[in-house]
Amino acid sequence: MMPPTAPELVLQCALIGAGRMGQAHASVLAGLRDVKITWVVDVNEESARQVAAQLGAQASTDLDAALSQPDVQAVLITTPAGTHADTIERSARAGKAIFSEKPLAKTLEDGVRAVRAVEAAGVPNQVGFQRRYDPACVSAKARIEAGELGRLEGFRAVGRDPQPPPTEYLVGAGGLLVDMGGHDLDLARFLVGEVAEVRAIGGALAKPELAQHGEHDTAVALLRFENGALGTLEVGLRTAYGYDIRTEVLGEKGRLHIERDKQPDLSVYDAGGVHHDRPRHFSERFGEAYAAEISAFARGVQAGRPLTPSVREALHSLRLALAAQHALVSGETVQVQDFGRELMRQIEPERL
Amino acid sequence: MMPPTAPELVLQCALIGAGRMGQAHASVLAGLRDVKITWVVDVNEESARQVAAQLGAQASTDLDAALSQPDVQAVLITTPAGTHADTIERSARAGKAIFSEKPLAKTLEDGVRAVRAVEAAGVPNQVGFQRRYDPACVSAKARIEAGELGRLEGFRAVGRDPQPPPTEYLVGAGGLLVDMGGHDLDLARFLVGEVAEVRAIGGALAKPELAQHGEHDTAVALLRFENGALGTLEVGLRTAYGYDIRTEVLGEKGRLHIERDKQPDLSVYDAGGVHHDRPRHFSERFGEAYAAEISAFARGVQAGRPLTPSVREALHSLRLALAAQHALVSGETVQVQDFGRELMRQIEPERL
Amino acid sequence: MMPPTAPELVLQCALIGAGRMGQAHASVLAGLRDVKITWVVDVNEESARQVAAQLGAQASTDLDAALSQPDVQAVLITTPAGTHADTIERSARAGKAIFSEKPLAKTLEDGVRAVRAVEAAGVPNQVGFQRRYDPACVSAKARIEAGELGRLEGFRAVGRDPQPPPTEYLVGAGGLLVDMGGHDLDLARFLVGEVAEVRAIGGALAKPELAQHGEHDTAVALLRFENGALGTLEVGLRTAYGYDIRTEVLGEKGRLHIERDKQPDLSVYDAGGVHHDRPRHFSERFGEAYAAEISAFARGVQAGRPLTPSVREALHSLRLALAAQHALVSGETVQVQDFGRELMRQIEPERL
Amino acid sequence: MMPPTAPELVLQCALIGAGRMGQAHASVLAGLRDVKITWVVDVNEESARQVAAQLGAQASTDLDAALSQPDVQAVLITTPAGTHADTIERSARAGKAIFSEKPLAKTLEDGVRAVRAVEAAGVPNQVGFQRRYDPACVSAKARIEAGELGRLEGFRAVGRDPQPPPTEYLVGAGGLLVDMGGHDLDLARFLVGEVAEVRAIGGALAKPELAQHGEHDTAVALLRFENGALGTLEVGLRTAYGYDIRTEVLGEKGRLHIERDKQPDLSVYDAGGVHHDRPRHFSERFGEAYAAEISAFARGVQAGRPLTPSVREALHSLRLALAAQHALVSGETVQVQDFGRELMRQIEPERL
Repeated sequence: MMPPTAPELVLQCALIGAGRMGQAHASVLAGLRDVKITWVVDVNEESARQVAAQLGAQASTDLDAALSQPDVQAVLITTPAGTHADTIERSARAGKAIFSEKPLAKTLEDGVRAVRAVEAAGVPNQVGFQRRYDPACVSAKARIEAGELGRLEGFRAVGRDPQPPPTEYLVGAGGLLVDMGGHDLDLARFLVGEVAEVRAIGGALAKPELAQHGEHDTAVALLRFENGALGTLEVGLRTAYGYDIRTEVLGEKGRLHIERDKQPDLSVYDAGGVHHDRPRHFSERFGEAYAAEISAFARGVQAGRPLTPSVREALHSLRLALAAQHALVSGETVQVQDFGRELMRQIEPERL
Repeated sequence: MMPPTAPELVLQCALIGAGRMGQAHASVLAGLRDVKITWVVDVNEESARQVAAQLGAQASTDLDAALSQPDVQAVLITTPAGTHADTIERSARAGKAIFSEKPLAKTLEDGVRAVRAVEAAGVPNQVGFQRRYDPACVSAKARIEAGELGRLEGFRAVGRDPQPPPTEYLVGAGGLLVDMGGHDLDLARFLVGEVAEVRAIGGALAKPELAQHGEHDTAVALLRFENGALGTLEVGLRTAYGYDIRTEVLGEKGRLHIERDKQPDLSVYDAGGVHHDRPRHFSERFGEAYAAEISAFARGVQAGRPLTPSVREALHSLRLALAAQHALVSGETVQVQDFGRELMRQIEPERL
Repeated sequence: MMPPTAPELVLQCALIGAGRMGQAHASVLAGLRDVKITWVVDVNEESARQVAAQLGAQASTDLDAALSQPDVQAVLITTPAGTHADTIERSARAGKAIFSEKPLAKTLEDGVRAVRAVEAAGVPNQVGFQRRYDPACVSAKARIEAGELGRLEGFRAVGRDPQPPPTEYLVGAGGLLVDMGGHDLDLARFLVGEVAEVRAIGGALAKPELAQHGEHDTAVALLRFENGALGTLEVGLRTAYGYDIRTEVLGEKGRLHIERDKQPDLSVYDAGGVHHDRPRHFSERFGEAYAAEISAFARGVQAGRPLTPSVREALHSLRLALAAQHALVSGETVQVQDFGRELMRQIEPERL
Repeated sequence: MMPPTAPELVLQCALIGAGRMGQAHASVLAGLRDVKITWVVDVNEESARQVAAQLGAQASTDLDAALSQPDVQAVLITTPAGTHADTIERSARAGKAIFSEKPLAKTLEDGVRAVRAVEAAGVPNQVGFQRRYDPACVSAKARIEAGELGRLEGFRAVGRDPQPPPTEYLVGAGGLLVDMGGHDLDLARFLVGEVAEVRAIGGALAKPELAQHGEHDTAVALLRFENGALGTLEVGLRTAYGYDIRTEVLGEKGRLHIERDKQPDLSVYDAGGVHHDRPRHFSERFGEAYAAEISAFARGVQAGRPLTPSVREALHSLRLALAAQHALVSGETVQVQDFGRELMRQIEPERL
């Protein structure tokens, strides 16, 4: 049980985006007392209305109108990735606290623009890498920082979705290692540190038609970290046994292994052996983490505490994901520091 | 993620009892949108006020006053067990829907009185055996009913709390097999069926001073079910490694094993081997189940659906727990059908 | 890998009994270099010949003839339990080192006679409680002796065979809690200490025809140890999912849990969840332990080291098993120290 | 328990090589009845004598002399990898059945030479990839061949030793992905199929001094299989928590996961959580597999059955390992079919 929240601490928010991700968040938001969705905005009026009704909010198709409402302290952006930067920019100019779904953007240009906008406006900002709020990840991070692993030497991640989205979605989604692998690459940075170099290969094993679009549904990658650690990553979009998320960090003194392998807490023994079920969908595996990241956002905004991961932090994860995707598409070894160096200099002028 | 709740479906409730269990429930209630606590009632004005402030409710020391409020559709009773029956009776007379914490009562007399009161008033009623709402238990029940185990032949339960409550509490709590073992015995009935016969032995291993009060902090019992199944039960109040709840059902075709053995989802590998943590407290293990039982109550009341487990159902679990406690104290083998037969006949006149 | 054995340390043995248990042991013996079976003795000449051929030994139906051979240093007794005492007595008189399968005997009289015989003869002696040689049990014992659990407070055991033997066998086997439960009760003594008091109930769930013989295929028992610890035991002869052996010891500082739940080391993930197999038969679960107990016997005899568990130690386990069986059959609570007190005094004259 | 072996089926063998691996095998051989070591050969007379004494065999420093003995039906070659080909050639010419430790050789030239020699002589031959005899691997192979996974799409392996051998050994061992990674790459071929392409990166994380020799103690690799499957591999020589061997195969219908994560079968619960131990050394993890491969060799030779994996099969695994090592050292992407194409043509003239 979480510590209770006094009613006056509810953060009034506009939910921007009532599509697939917006609806998924709406389910979480409906169960949270930290936030109150007062407006739901979507270019599709019907979607906006449906989600608004569900949340007891008002609906709008006009972002600027919603941003001008006095009962909107913050925005939760769940629009498609290609519109994140623009929405962030407008929300920042309106002085709103900003929570944006990941990835920060589809291009590095857009990502840099978003960082400049929120930092110029000085608004609180957070990006939705919810796994950082998973209790196992929180504990792993604390153990690493306490030195339990000693020097970090390895990273391994598997990130597999049960079923690929429609081809139309995948073709416009920015690439497998950005859209899906972005979570694992963000954790690589969060848990181990910056990645220096990436190699990747992939295929269209579940959906062969993706090949003609230059897209992949499966990829494996090698990571060399700046601190010398070596890592592997596997990302896939079709997994017969459900949702397979594993994250491991290896150090000179030990290893941390994050995985939920049994859900619910039931084992069945019969003539065929022992059986149990496991998470089938991200909402089952990360339900608590989604709630926790929004609560942290709401409380952090109200308390004036720094939020994490910030838009700037998410830009670095985006850069790594784009570099990995470039490695996957080109077959080349990509040096992450050389990738988008000019653009990154706009927000890191001290970097060479 | 649970399906969202439209705001108009919020059930307005009075929370009766702002002590230990009331506060624990308050934390859960604070995170739920299905119910709105409008009043908090406790004989201790200060406790009532604190919990009321936390929940944005009004406080009162006067139960009848609260029961007469128009914004009280239902009561959530979390007072000490000895007062449950009286509170249920008064709430039933006031026509309120009733959710009472377990056990239903401390004596069979009180329990029978509570059943008669709610059934005379015809009010919706539910008792807080939250484990029945644990996802693993729900799945186990469904598998048993689908015949996956065939004929049921065995039951095993371990129920151990990490730390015993103060001796003063234990001496007035009605006995180990009622207060703590009541959960496991309720599941025995829920999953396997009625218990015919019980034997038990116990000790005061963690708190030797309990012996002089005739109380126990540890007990083991044998159960013979009406359908021929045989069972064992262990209950304890001091467990070095936290909170240990295990429930097993054995049938001719297999076995179901309910246990949460890893929380969070993190394994640590080091020179000493492999390590993980596990639930330390009932709120960690059954957080979802507490929320789910209250939601089921709120939705069931609004939809006019039957609630479960009802006060009548809880009376049978209380009778079994009292019989087991009698076996423990007396050293005798107790035939459950003979235990309190006269009293039970008041509500089951068709029984011999 | 075990440390190698020099060839001169091979112990030359007669295998007495070429029935079910003799054949099971023969398979283990065939793979061991510590012992060489030179003679196989069985009243059934054909059985003796078959096992002898398999082991490269000579066959005989005449026990005394075999005992008089110079190439017989020791005997391995795997005859039916009712003949153990007699065979032990004759082997002891012949001056042979003795390894006998459990139980030591079917009656306390026979057991006492066996102890007196081996101790009068001064021959090395060991009884086949192989679980004491299972690596997990060895480690558990060491941890308990090192004080890792603090004061011992609880014991739980489940011992379930996959399929009941024929009714004819069961009717003459001495009772469920001696024949099958004897292993678990021996471990109770080995790991926790002497049992003061036992209660048991049972049934004939898998083979209802056993009831008319006063026999059981399922039993559950409560144990009160002399040191105050409380325990439960479940024994069964029909288990849909194979062979289920679990042993737990609880102390004030923690809990030890012995169980092999996955064999082989393979997990299968598919649309139905996660699956693995587990031991189906005692030879799968305790293959190493059978080899280890015989090796320990062979090496101990050659080195003149004390053997364990000795015939005297096994007598105490037999007494407990007989007491538990009496509790099961009579429904009474049995005080173990009162059970067979007169007989026990023959070998423990200092006892009151 | 394994089926017993009749004494006449013992295969008389010379053990060639009494160094580290020879001694490890000697411990296994000492416990096996399928083989009898009659001669131990080593250039170091003292080593030969010690191991011979342990096995009850005669010692020699002269390979040809031993090969000419009538009581040598087969050879078990456990010399350093660089001498395997030469020893195989001489043994083949002497008409002996050959079991050689892996890798088959240190160079492709030597490997090809060994294949030509054994095939010209027509002698039975097997190479020591013992993991193929691990029960979990045997079961995995059978499931794959039965089509349980459908089309194979992925492979993941981790192979980590607890402690690196001395630098002197590593510098001459042929490279990390041959000496250590050879096992995992052999399983990749055994379980999934031929590898088309490999990329690898590595480091000297545990022993930085290796870098100056161009050697690595850690490497990660990407594998693209001819059937389209994608794989990752991690190999390491220093692992704080022991010996970490994991092998996974992914198919369109599911996933197989081979790992021993608990040994012995004991879990310890205490105030720090739940703990268990795991294998620390290859002999603990693969003790049964070492015995099984030698037994299979001995029985196969006697029965005239084909042996597996043969020297020819092992050559393909060697070629893959050398290709992976080349990728690691050069940083290049290596096409396996192009690697050593001319040499391979000597034994596969039908290949282009």
